[in-house]
Amino acid sequence: MSNLRFGAGIWHFATYVDRYATDGYGDSRSILDAIELAGKVDDLSVVDLNYPFFGGDFTNEQVKTALEAQNLSVIGITPEIYTKVFRKGAFTNPDPGVRRLAHDLITEAADVVRYFGADYVKLWPGQDGWDYPFQVNHRRLWELSLEGLGQLAEENPDLKFVVEYKPREPRNHMSFDSVSRTLLGIEKIGLPNIGILLDFGHALYGGESPADSAQLAIDYGRLFGMDVNDNLRSWDDDMIAGTVHPIELMEFFHVLRSNNWEGVWQLDQFPFREDSVDAANMAIDFLKRIDAALNRLDVEELTAAQEAQDAVKANRLVQQALYGG
Amino acid sequence: MSNLRFGAGIWHFATYVDRYATDGYGDSRSILDAIELAGKVDDLSVVDLNYPFFGGDFTNEQVKTALEAQNLSVIGITPEIYTKVFRKGAFTNPDPGVRRLAHDLITEAADVVRYFGADYVKLWPGQDGWDYPFQVNHRRLWELSLEGLGQLAEENPDLKFVVEYKPREPRNHMSFDSVSRTLLGIEKIGLPNIGILLDFGHALYGGESPADSAQLAIDYGRLFGMDVNDNLRSWDDDMIAGTVHPIELMEFFHVLRSNNWEGVWQLDQFPFREDSVDAANMAIDFLKRIDAALNRLDVEELTAAQEAQDAVKANRLVQQALYGG
Amino acid sequence: MSNLRFGAGIWHFATYVDRYATDGYGDSRSILDAIELAGKVDDLSVVDLNYPFFGGDFTNEQVKTALEAQNLSVIGITPEIYTKVFRKGAFTNPDPGVRRLAHDLITEAADVVRYFGADYVKLWPGQDGWDYPFQVNHRRLWELSLEGLGQLAEENPDLKFVVEYKPREPRNHMSFDSVSRTLLGIEKIGLPNIGILLDFGHALYGGESPADSAQLAIDYGRLFGMDVNDNLRSWDDDMIAGTVHPIELMEFFHVLRSNNWEGVWQLDQFPFREDSVDAANMAIDFLKRIDAALNRLDVEELTAAQEAQDAVKANRLVQQALYGG
Amino acid sequence: MSNLRFGAGIWHFATYVDRYATDGYGDSRSILDAIELAGKVDDLSVVDLNYPFFGGDFTNEQVKTALEAQNLSVIGITPEIYTKVFRKGAFTNPDPGVRRLAHDLITEAADVVRYFGADYVKLWPGQDGWDYPFQVNHRRLWELSLEGLGQLAEENPDLKFVVEYKPREPRNHMSFDSVSRTLLGIEKIGLPNIGILLDFGHALYGGESPADSAQLAIDYGRLFGMDVNDNLRSWDDDMIAGTVHPIELMEFFHVLRSNNWEGVWQLDQFPFREDSVDAANMAIDFLKRIDAALNRLDVEELTAAQEAQDAVKANRLVQQALYGG
Repeated sequence: MSNLRFGAGIWHFATYVDRYATDGYGDSRSILDAIELAGKVDDLSVVDLNYPFFGGDFTNEQVKTALEAQNLSVIGITPEIYTKVFRKGAFTNPDPGVRRLAHDLITEAADVVRYFGADYVKLWPGQDGWDYPFQVNHRRLWELSLEGLGQLAEENPDLKFVVEYKPREPRNHMSFDSVSRTLLGIEKIGLPNIGILLDFGHALYGGESPADSAQLAIDYGRLFGMDVNDNLRSWDDDMIAGTVHPIELMEFFHVLRSNNWEGVWQLDQFPFREDSVDAANMAIDFLKRIDAALNRLDVEELTAAQEAQDAVKANRLVQQALYGG
Repeated sequence: MSNLRFGAGIWHFATYVDRYATDGYGDSRSILDAIELAGKVDDLSVVDLNYPFFGGDFTNEQVKTALEAQNLSVIGITPEIYTKVFRKGAFTNPDPGVRRLAHDLITEAADVVRYFGADYVKLWPGQDGWDYPFQVNHRRLWELSLEGLGQLAEENPDLKFVVEYKPREPRNHMSFDSVSRTLLGIEKIGLPNIGILLDFGHALYGGESPADSAQLAIDYGRLFGMDVNDNLRSWDDDMIAGTVHPIELMEFFHVLRSNNWEGVWQLDQFPFREDSVDAANMAIDFLKRIDAALNRLDVEELTAAQEAQDAVKANRLVQQALYGG
Repeated sequence: MSNLRFGAGIWHFATYVDRYATDGYGDSRSILDAIELAGKVDDLSVVDLNYPFFGGDFTNEQVKTALEAQNLSVIGITPEIYTKVFRKGAFTNPDPGVRRLAHDLITEAADVVRYFGADYVKLWPGQDGWDYPFQVNHRRLWELSLEGLGQLAEENPDLKFVVEYKPREPRNHMSFDSVSRTLLGIEKIGLPNIGILLDFGHALYGGESPADSAQLAIDYGRLFGMDVNDNLRSWDDDMIAGTVHPIELMEFFHVLRSNNWEGVWQLDQFPFREDSVDAANMAIDFLKRIDAALNRLDVEELTAAQEAQDAVKANRLVQQALYGG
Repeated sequence: MSNLRFGAGIWHFATYVDRYATDGYGDSRSILDAIELAGKVDDLSVVDLNYPFFGGDFTNEQVKTALEAQNLSVIGITPEIYTKVFRKGAFTNPDPGVRRLAHDLITEAADVVRYFGADYVKLWPGQDGWDYPFQVNHRRLWELSLEGLGQLAEENPDLKFVVEYKPREPRNHMSFDSVSRTLLGIEKIGLPNIGILLDFGHALYGGESPADSAQLAIDYGRLFGMDVNDNLRSWDDDMIAGTVHPIELMEFFHVLRSNNWEGVWQLDQFPFREDSVDAANMAIDFLKRIDAALNRLDVEELTAAQEAQDAVKANRLVQQALYGG
């Protein structure tokens, strides 16, 4: 139970653009501004930082100072391998020069991980994939994905690399599209320092049961991190956790707890039109509700119900724990 | 048959950003650059222009000169009622001051329509809607949509207004989400100068049959314009027309032809990673294939097959016309 | 508040087949068996009956006696216009003889409504639509839908007819596919005795906000009935209400209450592998939770939050009411 | 090129029921009736047979005689592990007695494979999975899936077993839900005689690129069979192959050909409302079009385009090959 630690991607506190509101959903912020906002959240311990640091030329030291001022530490570094130069892929870019750029950027990010004593380099190869039928040689594309990832893990055996899969966006189809595909790739590479960062919303949107995805990754010894949010199951909406799918969120955390998985409960939300501190507080308050509900859950009875695959009995127990008597 | 005229949204020739590649999918271009590129397409007659003109402070005259140099005329003006200031809605913004801004911008756009002798003001209220359950009062939101639209149509009886519906994006749910909802709204307003701009991809993605949507809008006398593209049915991918769903595209044009609907065959594509002139040429070449296939289609036999709802016979006729003997 | 009356489609207590388990998900039951089971539910007042009565040759009197023994009355009669003979449509069948059969069956059902003093004839034209591109003439199909429906409403002015829309299944696309399309058709017919039976799950699965759909139907004076269940948003799973989407279910009932809509809270669930009495009890217990949560909801504050479209504030209020302090 | 052999699941020539048309979409047929119909298809060489044989008590000898009369041979046997008794799962049924029944039925089916000299036992565990959140222990469910499958492969080393994955239906989520999950399981078992039967429509509906799925299965040496059909990407509609997604179908066969994959081009269609012989002939005629188009495809140029991930160039080549000059 419940010495919960909460975290967030620092982008939670940035502002956003999209293809329509090209002038942004708010005034742009530097990573230092974002860190200051993160510090205003009631119960945040760690952050995941984009690299390069956005909004200015900041040194590691400057960022560290800003973090210390807010009592925040770093859980991971996310190299931005999905910007303009990587628009046709990072690991799988048709241009070997760009693939090299990706490798170099991630290698730099590895040093930033070391600097901050963070847990991992987080890789989200959102531009690696395809848009059209017939666009790519699928074997080649997958080989490039695994070669790029494997080489980095091999070159940095002191560090962990986590892959965050997602079905699509910005590419119409991402190479690392699902928990199973990602595990298949990781097992093929066969190195101990590559794992999965499981995003609850990506699993949900991909038609997975996030609880099942977590269990599978755990059973392969590959669940290195996770984050949560919510969506309408047809897109990566990155809404506030718990606002749409509280039951599946609770099942997700139930599986983590049952497996004694210990790690940070992170947020990966994009509050386009909301106050980002409010949005984080609301999510964390809800995660605490979930934690309290799990404390109330009659696990023995639930286990029996699941043994019988008795959906009615299982969900009655869940409702009792979540909503009260 | 087939004095086809082709058109495109001028944004087809711009470059794009999204929430990940915030530095863009290419170097940014002004509307004048885009017009020059549009002029390189083999067979383009008209364009739809965003307003305000992007990439600089250009006068109507400058834009007109640029268009004339490329032999292009203007079919519609699309006021940008979906940028930062409108991020919580244009017609339905909770702030009456912002609603007024939307009204004023559209009124300006109406004058631009007059200046260019264009066919219509195109309204795509992409930020009008909601993201979360319980976020809005649904009656009030719909009332605001219809009031805002109706007022403009009333104030500008010399012009046509077309509404382009879409299920979602950027809002998680758009108020004008479907052909039927939009017709319901238009009929409620009851003015003759409001119609629909039917985007093939929006209909497809919304689970409609675009052919059925076109027929319905025609039967209400409200199909004022259309554009095409393609997608994977789960998002507004704005891919090159014909690359994924050629059969439904052909059925769409079959319905237009059967109803003697005369209008421009427009493109609304976002070639994020493709050369925009190539992408336009490829689409137009495919539309000509469709047109030729429709010339070959045995309409009498098809009508008989449809009368019997004989899917096999109907699609055999279609395949013969499209793929040859 | 809360003189709630609960109802269910009598098929909730039948057993099912599908295209794989052609020998059924349980031993088959007659309508009398189903009524007996319905009587075992703790808090059920009314049922909707399929017509013809399934599982034997039963008279109205026999059914009435069975209902009285369980203290149940009849809210609606659902003529089975989706069986083998109607596999290519009821109102829109290409064979006029089959269209006539549909008309006659519904006319019989109208008499059964009169016999039981029920509220309405429920029409769910699940086979009216299309499967393939190019299969139908879309104008003709829609005309046939409205003619068939309109004729019946005209011939039976003493009765109400409710249409239950659904995006698809068993046809790949149903003609009455959405709330807006159905309202458009009803308004075109223009008779006062046709309304909508809004199925929460159909709206959800169709990408609608069920709360918005209810509001729209109410604003046209056409919300004659409703039922609830749950699903995974990609199919009409007819799961137990509240097990997946409690928040949207609560918003749905909030809208009904705000509009002083008074009617029965009905269940349309298909407990394929569950005990049907358990499944009904569980759903009704959850609906009572929702009702209690609505009693606790600070409507004034919520109204203010919605006026500002403040999703965070609105959902905090909802969470407080639903989950407690 | 093109000594194509075509096959079909014998259920293609049966009739169907679903949860609404419980009296069926046509008069029921025995497997002997279905074989006779299969014989009427112009170009069919092999069939996949459900086991037990449907519609009567038929011996292997009777079925063999019927097949010989139509010049058909057997490619696979599909034990019906998804009927009433297995409604809560075959391999994963909570009742060990039912798991034993599944094992025994499949073992019988293995003998039928031997009798007919067929290629494989086909396993489609459509009832193995879950419907509700919290219903199952996900680890246990997956273990049971692999144990059941592995034991059979071990006990029958002379035979091949193929698993046909599908995202869902009839269970709301199937355990073998995707190409990657299935490969992960097969590799975990580690036996040489388990492979994948790749259903084009299941891959498409699951958000996969069927071409990519085929490549992946081939690269693991596990593509033991395939079948085709079409759908609207949101359900396993089992429509006639080529009617909706010709381009992706062509890409799928392009990948098979590029890998020198040799096997039967099978149909898995459910012509609910169509003549089944017509539907098979139409699909096979289209597959021949695809084959001819692949003959015309400039593979060298396509390879270059794919190397550059040039979607426009690649798809121009495809369109030329498919639609002509």
